[in-house]
Amino acid sequence: MRIREVVVTPVAFPDPPLLNSAGVHQPWALRAIVELRCGDGLTGLGETYGDAPHLALLREAAGALVGLDPYDTNGLLRRIRSVLGGADAPDRHGLTGGSTPEKTVLRVLSPFEVACLDLQGQLAGRPVADLLGGRVRDRVPYAGYLFYKWAGPDPYGEALDPDGIVAQARAMVDAYGFRSLKLKGGVRPPGEEIDAIRALRDAFPDHPLRLDPNQAWTVETSTKVAAETEGLLEYLEDPTPGIPGMAEVARTAPMPLATNMVVVGTQDIPEGFGRRAVDVVLADHHYWGGLRRSVELAAICGTFGVGVSMHSNSHLGISLAAMTHLGAALPEMTYAADTHTPWQCGADVLAEPLEIEDGSVLVPERPGLGVRLDPDALARLHGNYLRCGIRERDDTGYMQTFDPDYEKRRPRW
Amino acid sequence: MRIREVVVTPVAFPDPPLLNSAGVHQPWALRAIVELRCGDGLTGLGETYGDAPHLALLREAAGALVGLDPYDTNGLLRRIRSVLGGADAPDRHGLTGGSTPEKTVLRVLSPFEVACLDLQGQLAGRPVADLLGGRVRDRVPYAGYLFYKWAGPDPYGEALDPDGIVAQARAMVDAYGFRSLKLKGGVRPPGEEIDAIRALRDAFPDHPLRLDPNQAWTVETSTKVAAETEGLLEYLEDPTPGIPGMAEVARTAPMPLATNMVVVGTQDIPEGFGRRAVDVVLADHHYWGGLRRSVELAAICGTFGVGVSMHSNSHLGISLAAMTHLGAALPEMTYAADTHTPWQCGADVLAEPLEIEDGSVLVPERPGLGVRLDPDALARLHGNYLRCGIRERDDTGYMQTFDPDYEKRRPRW
Ligand SMILES: [Mg+2]
Ligand SMILES: [Mg+2]
Repeated sequence: MRIREVVVTPVAFPDPPLLNSAGVHQPWALRAIVELRCGDGLTGLGETYGDAPHLALLREAAGALVGLDPYDTNGLLRRIRSVLGGADAPDRHGLTGGSTPEKTVLRVLSPFEVACLDLQGQLAGRPVADLLGGRVRDRVPYAGYLFYKWAGPDPYGEALDPDGIVAQARAMVDAYGFRSLKLKGGVRPPGEEIDAIRALRDAFPDHPLRLDPNQAWTVETSTKVAAETEGLLEYLEDPTPGIPGMAEVARTAPMPLATNMVVVGTQDIPEGFGRRAVDVVLADHHYWGGLRRSVELAAICGTFGVGVSMHSNSHLGISLAAMTHLGAALPEMTYAADTHTPWQCGADVLAEPLEIEDGSVLVPERPGLGVRLDPDALARLHGNYLRCGIRERDDTGYMQTFDPDYEKRRPRW
Repeated sequence: MRIREVVVTPVAFPDPPLLNSAGVHQPWALRAIVELRCGDGLTGLGETYGDAPHLALLREAAGALVGLDPYDTNGLLRRIRSVLGGADAPDRHGLTGGSTPEKTVLRVLSPFEVACLDLQGQLAGRPVADLLGGRVRDRVPYAGYLFYKWAGPDPYGEALDPDGIVAQARAMVDAYGFRSLKLKGGVRPPGEEIDAIRALRDAFPDHPLRLDPNQAWTVETSTKVAAETEGLLEYLEDPTPGIPGMAEVARTAPMPLATNMVVVGTQDIPEGFGRRAVDVVLADHHYWGGLRRSVELAAICGTFGVGVSMHSNSHLGISLAAMTHLGAALPEMTYAADTHTPWQCGADVLAEPLEIEDGSVLVPERPGLGVRLDPDALARLHGNYLRCGIRERDDTGYMQTFDPDYEKRRPRW
């Protein structure tokens, strides 16, 4: 069994104007869908970022994968490393930390590794979760992901103050049954975001809450916000830039600090864990190099007494399936995962997308990822891509079309 | 596909009088062979220690495994943890570091996890190495394992001085083609062991050499030996007890320090790696909890810039097969693995044991571990077990039958 054909299809889907410390989401979010075809209708699926520099590297890698055995993920990495030859493809928003050539290799590896595991599962007649050690849970919990935002194509309307955030949370909880809530902060002055957290606590007394300002605050501000939100947050995510800054905040913060910005690759672990700068890592198989490497990350976290949660960027259903299989197999993951799924308002490339019910996704029992492409949907979303004119995620540039004086500053407060 | 029957068979085979810092090997070495039977002739194999306390725990665990899905290794761990309920089964020799209830769980888990992977491989029609990410090498190199010893049932004769060690090395290299050599030290005064290393270097100018005194030396002695063997050793293994002692030796040692005695579980990693006490970990799937956990260990080592080698106790062919699949799939493993295989002089429970040729073992391409039990051989070695009278490895007690004043002292020099 060998890979005969590799297809990489960029897609775009409408994205609401979600605000963050880098600016605002553009009207279209980009992804790339990867198909590893082995003949006889056997196809493995993966999903990753759709930004042009990344897409170019995906396509370079794709050319080197024909003939590969889908069980040989070590060989997959070797081929990709050799094809990329030290290339780096940094992103503009930096919302998942800095890039390095090694992180770029792992980002390119990820969708192909997922697709190989999808193939392995189909060949073995077993769901991907089984290839990762078996389900420790039948449903994977996700958190409702709240954003300050403008009105947009989504049904949630504007949210620029605590009332707006609570209304958004109410709508999300009603629609999906989320049992944890995360507020994307770093948008309003810290005092307003604390007020929003307090309002959420009042409205949802039993929901664990998280706040993620994406490094918008100085160490001093972070320390103050942490003290003022004592007892309100299950974790505070990336309050301030850099491992030394996080370590300083961690010294006094009464709640765990989480990150998907300072510990974003194995090279960050010795310092990040050694300095006790973070208590929780948000795993993300899209840049940690796939599902098996995310399992290893969780093992490393467990070894150092660091918790495991899961990060999300705007994504479609293949990623949701991969995240769900991973979340199902990780004993170390004791937090609900992030997902942007509600913000995609049903856009997908799958025939039967996984559903979020009671705040969680049922782990597919079908072989592999357990999902099937809808070729018409893929064509439609690829058409979006061709027409939308966006080729790279640029939250800051898009914000500047509304406010020419806008600058991305981290920290800002 | 479920496990229908679990069979644990203790076996014994003749062991030469190999000397180490705990005493001398008894005339019989014990192992336990694990069979997970799923019906229709489908059986998964594992191999582990045969000491009575461990055997009792294996049997307790075995009773809880009927009905388990062989893909559910997370569930396997859960069941074993729950059955053992915090039991600990320390060994007397302590040659793989101290025991803890958690290490005991992982020791009991190991043969069952290997047998589950053997089953998964057979079900998928793929070798176990493929389930671990695929072969990064087609042959796994092993080191010739040299011992000070008395004359015994083996063809190698007595070795109590540099000439004897060189002659033993010559015989091993001639028979197996080993391209690295390891001397088990901690037996003769350090000066004599340094002389043996020098003699090996003269006789085998191109063979990487290792010396492993199993914590027989003080920090001062270790530091002195390390300085005197500069340029001679690819690594010095466990010269002195404890992480603080190893860290102190590591400060000045000109060669890497390796261990299978101070970093023997994830609980040792933060301190061991944090203090830079060791440069190489000898992975051993028998106490690290099986093959997947050994892959995770290698990933942790890679993350911290720590090298990976492989440890061995007296073992038979199932363990050799498991070690070979693991060694085949670990990019991080850049050292030849230890093996006691030559000392077992052909004793085995397999129909067609793997062969060491050119100092390495060809990775089996058959599904699963790629080995088959020989029921007659198993019965014969089980008969040995029933008759041999040994129920627990006790190198020190056996040494005292020759020298009543012998005491295990670590450090001794
Ligand atoms: Mg974040
Ligand atoms: Mg050793």
